[in-house]
Amino acid sequence: MKIILVGATGTIGRTLFKNLSQRHDVVPVSHSKSDIKVDITSLASIEAMYKTVGPFDALVSVVGSAYFGSFEAMTEEDLYKGIRSKMMGQINLVMAGKKSIRDNGSFSLTSGILSEDPIRNGVALTMVNNAVNGFVLGASVELQRGVRINAVSPGLVEDSASALGAAFPGHIPVPMERVVMGYLKSIEGVETGKVIRIYG
Amino acid sequence: MKIILVGATGTIGRTLFKNLSQRHDVVPVSHSKSDIKVDITSLASIEAMYKTVGPFDALVSVVGSAYFGSFEAMTEEDLYKGIRSKMMGQINLVMAGKKSIRDNGSFSLTSGILSEDPIRNGVALTMVNNAVNGFVLGASVELQRGVRINAVSPGLVEDSASALGAAFPGHIPVPMERVVMGYLKSIEGVETGKVIRIYG
Repeated sequence: MKIILVGATGTIGRTLFKNLSQRHDVVPVSHSKSDIKVDITSLASIEAMYKTVGPFDALVSVVGSAYFGSFEAMTEEDLYKGIRSKMMGQINLVMAGKKSIRDNGSFSLTSGILSEDPIRNGVALTMVNNAVNGFVLGASVELQRGVRINAVSPGLVEDSASALGAAFPGHIPVPMERVVMGYLKSIEGVETGKVIRIYG
Repeated sequence: MKIILVGATGTIGRTLFKNLSQRHDVVPVSHSKSDIKVDITSLASIEAMYKTVGPFDALVSVVGSAYFGSFEAMTEEDLYKGIRSKMMGQINLVMAGKKSIRDNGSFSLTSGILSEDPIRNGVALTMVNNAVNGFVLGASVELQRGVRINAVSPGLVEDSASALGAAFPGHIPVPMERVVMGYLKSIEGVETGKVIRIYG
């Protein structure tokens, strides 16, 4: 399969790239560190990326950010940062890619455990992750030609636990190899419209 | 209780107004048909509404729209219509209202059954409803002074079934009095961070 991996240089992306490259033709894409670049907050940039890559079998997105911080200080613009990035950035990857994806291809987006297990300072991510999960469900009944779509919802990944763990009290870190399995289920499996939960 | 009812002239809002007015001081608010008006797509309009109303005990929102139509023809702007209205409109009602709500007050937002039971043409609503449910969960752990927040997720209401039923194959219409009970549980009950499902 020809697989576009958006976020190929990130924490999950690097491991996914190594794994998928053993069996597939993986096209790494990132904001600035890959030959093919994309700014997911710009639909025009996403469309240009698809034009460069051409027809493909799978799109995997492991990108997107959202505001993380004080609820009291959070502004409307803070919420829109996540809407434009992790939410609509990933959704636009699907909307713009559904024309050039091959029959029986798949889209795999990333949400996260905060969708259902909230923490202090995390409301924007809880909102955005649920929006991504919702889009996946709604789009799964609309995509044509056997094209599938799923969201992988990882817990706090072990590789990020030393940096982020203090913000996630009681969250059991998840080994990266388990997180990778979630994406493999979405890409190489048969399910659609699912939130694939990979929690500790 | 002094209860602000945003969407007081809508299908659910009219019935809710009659019920709540029997026991509470209800302030009806709508886009154009009430003495106090609000455009929920404008944070400035929401802030002006709260300034007019002053301190209150409960905010009930039964407003907000989103794109409903062809997935193939849906544009980024179509998705943002729902983001600005049913999603961020309701979320801004909470963010702007959390300063003037009294201790132990409550916010009750509206999502809907499409959050988990998708239909053709409904992806924007499935996305937006999940975002609202997610915001409610995330905000419930942040709100101070005993303030609660819930989302009521109604199924296809009987009163709308003749107009909308054809778009909702197999959805069993819900009597309006059952939908009203969902809002009463949120307003007069004790729960927070919940999606109160009222399905047929």
